[in-house]
Amino acid sequence: MKAIVQIGLKPGVLDPQGRAIARSLTDLGFEEVTAARQGKVIELDIKGEDAASAEQRVNEMCEKLLANTVIESYSVKIES
Amino acid sequence: MKAIVQIGLKPGVLDPQGRAIARSLTDLGFEEVTAARQGKVIELDIKGEDAASAEQRVNEMCEKLLANTVIESYSVKIES
Repeated sequence: MKAIVQIGLKPGVLDPQGRAIARSLTDLGFEEVTAARQGKVIELDIKGEDAASAEQRVNEMCEKLLANTVIESYSVKIES
Repeated sequence: MKAIVQIGLKPGVLDPQGRAIARSLTDLGFEEVTAARQGKVIELDIKGEDAASAEQRVNEMCEKLLANTVIESYSVKIES
């Protein structure tokens, strides 16, 4: 089973990486870009068959290790 | 319009970050995790109405700036 975890900064948290990307893109001539935000995506291979319990475990992983929940939010998607 | 760009290492490229994540997770008791890969996701706000041309432009952005196409692959999704 595969779990896709997307982690991004919460709205309102300063995102200097995203700003740098937006600025570089407009400097390169992509003037249609008005804003950019960068986050990360973590793909996990997981043993087991039960998607519901896998999702619960991956949420636990996010809370304990993968995301900094003070400034980041995350979403979990399970693929079989 | 929004563009979601997912960038990840190509298969076969060593992913030390992913390995560190997988190892930390098993050390924390999440023994069902057999592998992890980390990539990034960039969300762009784009002016304009034409999704097809936006997609083409975002592909150009990936080739020129966002992805290192020697070791990374990317996918683009346009959302209105």
